[in-house]
Amino acid sequence: MEEKNQYLKEITPMDEDFSQWYIDTILKAELADYSTVRGCIVFRPYGYAIWENMQQLLDRRFKETGHKNAYFPLFIPESLLQKEAEHVEGFAPEVAWVTHGGSDELVERLAVRPTSETIICSMYSKWIKSWRDLPVLINQWANVVRWEKSTRPFLRTSEFLWQEGHTAHRTEEEAEEETLRMLEVYRDFVETELAIPVIKGRKTENEKFAGALRTYTIEALMKDGKALQAGTSHNLGQHFAKVFDIQYLDTDGQLKYVWQTSWGVSTRLIGALIMVHGDNKGLKIPPRIAPVQAIIIPIPGQESEKVFEKAKELSAGLNSRFRVEVDFNDEKTPGWKFSEYEMKGVPLRIEIGPRDVKNDQVVLVRRDTGEKMVISQDALDVKIGEVLEDIQRNMFTQARAFVEKNTREVHSFDEFKETIENKKGFVKANWCGSTECELAIKDETMATIRCIPFEGSEPDGGCVHCGNRATKKVIFARSY
Amino acid sequence: MEEKNQYLKEITPMDEDFSQWYIDTILKAELADYSTVRGCIVFRPYGYAIWENMQQLLDRRFKETGHKNAYFPLFIPESLLQKEAEHVEGFAPEVAWVTHGGSDELVERLAVRPTSETIICSMYSKWIKSWRDLPVLINQWANVVRWEKSTRPFLRTSEFLWQEGHTAHRTEEEAEEETLRMLEVYRDFVETELAIPVIKGRKTENEKFAGALRTYTIEALMKDGKALQAGTSHNLGQHFAKVFDIQYLDTDGQLKYVWQTSWGVSTRLIGALIMVHGDNKGLKIPPRIAPVQAIIIPIPGQESEKVFEKAKELSAGLNSRFRVEVDFNDEKTPGWKFSEYEMKGVPLRIEIGPRDVKNDQVVLVRRDTGEKMVISQDALDVKIGEVLEDIQRNMFTQARAFVEKNTREVHSFDEFKETIENKKGFVKANWCGSTECELAIKDETMATIRCIPFEGSEPDGGCVHCGNRATKKVIFARSY
Repeated sequence: MEEKNQYLKEITPMDEDFSQWYIDTILKAELADYSTVRGCIVFRPYGYAIWENMQQLLDRRFKETGHKNAYFPLFIPESLLQKEAEHVEGFAPEVAWVTHGGSDELVERLAVRPTSETIICSMYSKWIKSWRDLPVLINQWANVVRWEKSTRPFLRTSEFLWQEGHTAHRTEEEAEEETLRMLEVYRDFVETELAIPVIKGRKTENEKFAGALRTYTIEALMKDGKALQAGTSHNLGQHFAKVFDIQYLDTDGQLKYVWQTSWGVSTRLIGALIMVHGDNKGLKIPPRIAPVQAIIIPIPGQESEKVFEKAKELSAGLNSRFRVEVDFNDEKTPGWKFSEYEMKGVPLRIEIGPRDVKNDQVVLVRRDTGEKMVISQDALDVKIGEVLEDIQRNMFTQARAFVEKNTREVHSFDEFKETIENKKGFVKANWCGSTECELAIKDETMATIRCIPFEGSEPDGGCVHCGNRATKKVIFARSY
Repeated sequence: MEEKNQYLKEITPMDEDFSQWYIDTILKAELADYSTVRGCIVFRPYGYAIWENMQQLLDRRFKETGHKNAYFPLFIPESLLQKEAEHVEGFAPEVAWVTHGGSDELVERLAVRPTSETIICSMYSKWIKSWRDLPVLINQWANVVRWEKSTRPFLRTSEFLWQEGHTAHRTEEEAEEETLRMLEVYRDFVETELAIPVIKGRKTENEKFAGALRTYTIEALMKDGKALQAGTSHNLGQHFAKVFDIQYLDTDGQLKYVWQTSWGVSTRLIGALIMVHGDNKGLKIPPRIAPVQAIIIPIPGQESEKVFEKAKELSAGLNSRFRVEVDFNDEKTPGWKFSEYEMKGVPLRIEIGPRDVKNDQVVLVRRDTGEKMVISQDALDVKIGEVLEDIQRNMFTQARAFVEKNTREVHSFDEFKETIENKKGFVKANWCGSTECELAIKDETMATIRCIPFEGSEPDGGCVHCGNRATKKVIFARSY
């Protein structure tokens, strides 16, 4: 097992340096790599496969809720981006600008889309004429660019991949319903498929999306005690409709502005997946999203041919139901491979040696608990299904227990500061509702209001900062 | 039927103005729309759904041949793009350049990728160390930008969507095998799924990809007699490997340069689909790729409730096997809907009225032949499967007959010019192999060598232009 230790040595332990552990894990597991372009990463096949699985599971949910995919231009003329004042103020500082096509200077600069509200609204104003055209329920899978000063793989990169839904409705109620429906789609996806527990809530005025009426969010907690915004859904009201003149003729013969929403999740979810489930051995990927759900490792011994044959046969039999691979590499020892696939977070290992071949059995080893089981080959198909489900459930339970343990209520600002600084995690506290207090707290502690939660936001005392009457109990944290 | 005529009037007849017919069809069928960004189109949901189907059918083929997807940065530093001389010469004139991030001028300009060989090679040189790392078989689904002077929806736009495969191999033979394997994947995909017959062949030195050793192509013929390059596969040799220093340690202990390939198809295939199958009524989409394979149109008469109920029931029953929709819109007449879905190219129409409900039957109408069939509802499931297959087959047969009819052999340059100018289509002619003749022919006739076909390239006379000894019989055409 010397090899194993040598291998593990390359990942910095979490509690020694969490940031370094995160980077080591990403590079070592070949999820991503740094590129020659500042702030841009390469999604390597193993990392991209996680994104593909996410896309498939989300896309199905979008289509089930009546949405269709479309694709809008990467470039947004500067004048278009500037139409909505709050929006441009929010995004202009981080826009990458195209100024030349070939050797010609462009008459108007083009923004590489940081988000697509403006270009999409310019089309909706052409397409929407009558109440019969509504609702418009469109989603886009795309790359977006935000020129970030400091970057971190998956969490904050100059270019990232995401989906952005953009809908238009007849009434404010319908738009609000859609906004909350998609937030629930995100919660269900993130909790069910990624095994990441989240808190649903509303963003404060200060934290909402540039140009939105209301922003809703799902917030997750990483193992270092920092929060991560995992998805947002915005009720855009009529802000964009008025600026882009998106009007429809209603049944009563009146021209009215539409009500809009937009919502998105991105490849930063891969970052969340790493930081919620990982451990000192590396990744731990929930079965439903894992590119490889079970890895078969032949332990050839003196009968390599028989063992390889059986491994191949088992894999072929399992492949219609599960994502299974066999590692036939004869340069690496089984022990080395055990560590490698643990590091890569494969939920289940299937070991098969000469004795197992003889006894029609295999050894199953769980990544989440380390538990070993000897299973008859006949029962393998059923057993793997059960174990994978149990791993998924267990990973969610573990993660939820972590959030519960790391969510603390405080009632004084001293307690607040002490908790944020030393214990980290989510901190629940009463808040007066003023942006001044919100910003003062941020200045002093680097903690922001993650959300006004849908559940448990009734205040039970004065504002944790100013002591005045509180309007809400909200959730604070330092965040990514 | 006045409505119908009014509706059809909006599509210009093909033989009156083919270009206008093409644009009218795209806009009317809501495949795409012009955007406010020069040369960029919006893929509307109906057009994007065709691309999604193509992606799915291609992606499956890529994975079956051992490829994995990854994602590389959108931006390529200017110095990286310039490393391979032929490559940069080919692409620099049409590059969109990012010069500013936020309000800061960049130290080095960034190209918005026109193709990704350079950025991918910069990573391969990091990743590939040993013969055990080979082959690297990676594909990327992405948007690319080429700043085109004159554009046309799907065929030539400043931004388009595509996939680009990039592989690295130990030997020249392996790379050549891969290049031809992927060309065959493309042929199979385009002929089987899109019902578009193609000619496989090699590009001339003059027409090959900038930086490639050899380029192979599949060429299709549009209804106006112009050719369209439907997909290309390049053997890159060691050009990029040497420039980007991609070396591996072989089993013999020697450091060697890898052999590379790249291959791609793009959203221009949607343009091909329109121009190969369409007619004066609009689109005609082959069943395997059609977003809607069958449209159910209720003809309510005096018993709308019963008819709607039955239509819903039939749709629910068919939906697990086919992509079926019902049009319940009560503002449009059935006749209007017939024209609309013909224009949208839906392969099969299912009409159901009160008499059909009573007699447990429906009326099926084929888009390709106009044939009407009265079918018992019990037999519908099986019958639809059969008819869709027959439509797919028939559309391919029709398209192939068109290509055969419009492929002509000529033996003199006068005949060549007359054929290219008046009959159009593919023109087979002997060629001496010189770039001078190739370019002179292009200058005089606007026809280019589409390919040196894999079949039937034995010359049987002197070069059609200079009369000297011919080395090949090749295929000429004017092209998109």
